[in-house]
Amino acid sequence: MVITLTTDFGTSDYFVGSMKGVILSANPDARIVDISHDIPPQDIEAAAFTLLAAYKSFPKGTVHVAVVDPGVGSSRSPILLAANEQYFVGPDNGLFGYICEREENWQAFQITNESYFRQPVSTTFHGRDVFAPVAAALSRGTTPEELGSPITEFVKLESLVPIPFVEGEIKGRIIHIDNFGNCVTNLTEEHLPDSAELEVNDKEITTVKKFFAEDTKKKSKVFMILGSAGFLELAAKNTSAAKILKAKRGDTVTIRTRMKDEG
Amino acid sequence: MVITLTTDFGTSDYFVGSMKGVILSANPDARIVDISHDIPPQDIEAAAFTLLAAYKSFPKGTVHVAVVDPGVGSSRSPILLAANEQYFVGPDNGLFGYICEREENWQAFQITNESYFRQPVSTTFHGRDVFAPVAAALSRGTTPEELGSPITEFVKLESLVPIPFVEGEIKGRIIHIDNFGNCVTNLTEEHLPDSAELEVNDKEITTVKKFFAEDTKKKSKVFMILGSAGFLELAAKNTSAAKILKAKRGDTVTIRTRMKDEG
Amino acid sequence: MVITLTTDFGTSDYFVGSMKGVILSANPDARIVDISHDIPPQDIEAAAFTLLAAYKSFPKGTVHVAVVDPGVGSSRSPILLAANEQYFVGPDNGLFGYICEREENWQAFQITNESYFRQPVSTTFHGRDVFAPVAAALSRGTTPEELGSPITEFVKLESLVPIPFVEGEIKGRIIHIDNFGNCVTNLTEEHLPDSAELEVNDKEITTVKKFFAEDTKKKSKVFMILGSAGFLELAAKNTSAAKILKAKRGDTVTIRTRMKDEG
Repeated sequence: MVITLTTDFGTSDYFVGSMKGVILSANPDARIVDISHDIPPQDIEAAAFTLLAAYKSFPKGTVHVAVVDPGVGSSRSPILLAANEQYFVGPDNGLFGYICEREENWQAFQITNESYFRQPVSTTFHGRDVFAPVAAALSRGTTPEELGSPITEFVKLESLVPIPFVEGEIKGRIIHIDNFGNCVTNLTEEHLPDSAELEVNDKEITTVKKFFAEDTKKKSKVFMILGSAGFLELAAKNTSAAKILKAKRGDTVTIRTRMKDEG
Repeated sequence: MVITLTTDFGTSDYFVGSMKGVILSANPDARIVDISHDIPPQDIEAAAFTLLAAYKSFPKGTVHVAVVDPGVGSSRSPILLAANEQYFVGPDNGLFGYICEREENWQAFQITNESYFRQPVSTTFHGRDVFAPVAAALSRGTTPEELGSPITEFVKLESLVPIPFVEGEIKGRIIHIDNFGNCVTNLTEEHLPDSAELEVNDKEITTVKKFFAEDTKKKSKVFMILGSAGFLELAAKNTSAAKILKAKRGDTVTIRTRMKDEG
Repeated sequence: MVITLTTDFGTSDYFVGSMKGVILSANPDARIVDISHDIPPQDIEAAAFTLLAAYKSFPKGTVHVAVVDPGVGSSRSPILLAANEQYFVGPDNGLFGYICEREENWQAFQITNESYFRQPVSTTFHGRDVFAPVAAALSRGTTPEELGSPITEFVKLESLVPIPFVEGEIKGRIIHIDNFGNCVTNLTEEHLPDSAELEVNDKEITTVKKFFAEDTKKKSKVFMILGSAGFLELAAKNTSAAKILKAKRGDTVTIRTRMKDEG
């Protein structure tokens, strides 16, 4: 069974290794996959996006563990989400908000059965002491019902659905900037008119490309492209669109049908 | 069987991949876990601390390989330590010093049986040519006695036991600064008086928290907390305590019973 | 079966995790090894060198996936190389050029059988949608012939063979600078005269060491050493030779037999 890890722990410390040791102690056959440990510290939205973009590539039964956990040790609950025939395990702070928005059928549980925890449970590292052993248990067939109780309320995130059409115009936002400097928006194919004009940070983008190296007549460096996570991205060939646009996560993007050919 | 890797190789080169290839060539069933490859170059204490903080999370029989090896190719010996029903493999330069201090029962061996090495053995990469194949052999059941001869002397590190009480005062030191900027000291729960005052770099810290997000009346940004590696740490909520304290590894920390309430 | 990954994706995004999810969906028993994901963006030579330095450490049957792919989505072909009883899978842009130069017997194939691809194939992420599932298929026994058609022409790289002897002098170049600042050249043991003098960036290096910590009478900080990838490297003890030499990849190095003892 596959167990994935998404954290803000970085890779210079013992944190990730310790989680893996705990998992393999409980399930020597687990296949552990790092999605990312370079989530910016305490950045729940970044982890939520990363999970959203990755989870559908994994097989049924995968247990996704996400630990970005500024509230560790406080009264925030450990939770477990069952969706897409997969499990999602982590603190109740919004990490699985985007998954719930995408998946219609989900069940959520508060994890309460401490007999599955690593003892003694530290107050600062539930990744090792709570989430890793719970994930290992799930990967061995323990059911959510054995681990806790169903809940209907848990922390969500601001919706990824863009603000609806207003006179042929939609407002979205940048939800992620990737390693190459591509700016991922919350707009999707359905929001892209045949002849689109996108405004971000007072700059206008009118080129839409199908792939990064596509040649177009237009000279603008930054272009729109439908990215691999299913969202419209702003990209630039072999350079960082984010730098060119001085863009950061949360920046508003406005897309509208282009009236005249400005190419 | 689990084999862990702790090195200063970084992850941009072929070094780590080559070690894994050699391990999987000799034992296709080995489960390889990266503890960290971002140990600062040639920093033996950092690797020793990382191993110390992680090893107890791993199952019996785990083989821990540590390669921070400025003396590679010189006369320094490859060694093997058996402790905690696990093995530790690496150069004899102190990497396992903290493990030996923690574990009462250990056996050390000089690795001499070159028939287990990858041939030809390079003079610059014993991680690939000596330690990886030896770890793979151990993971397949080869005994320490088959690999070399018992030794009683090997390189140790400065002790982690703090200087003993002097008039209600203990002097310790910062032994690690983690990815979040938390400063790990060599003080433990037993050195923490009910009402503690800690001095580091001419700054005084009087707040003790149970978890990072705990609310306290005191306004001081930096607080003490018992960390997940079993040591007292200096931390700050959602920011780097190391930056605030201008702290670096090796800095002295003095803890004493607080006389008056300064809260 | 082992599948290795070498990319410029970095480790902060969902890219690498997604590839692994796709691989494990198709072959739950695959052993996935990261060689490096920190190849500089779009740097084909760096990926080619990294693969060259690592592939011989892996067992027969290993499938090496390399994705540095500025032309993703364009007409550049996905290719497959069979060499050294291993497979190499990636875009046709030179990534396997050094492997072909090293291995006399290789067979190349254009990958055309889309029934092995993940559908729908995105135009921006063939690592996930083409190369990962093809690698998984190969690791399960699918033959190159089932995946595509033999080809004889594909993109190569500038040769790693140095310019031949001219009056006891060879010109080579720096082909890689590693994490420690060691400068790997394309010169090998056979190009190293008994008494060698190497010139790079108007600096002269006359010391040859067998291992990094070797003591020599000479005081020069930078020395020559035969490195673990089989090439002559320029190194400095516990510091970066690249910084001292202000060296970068591509810089010319000239080696000649030393006439007088300048030690």
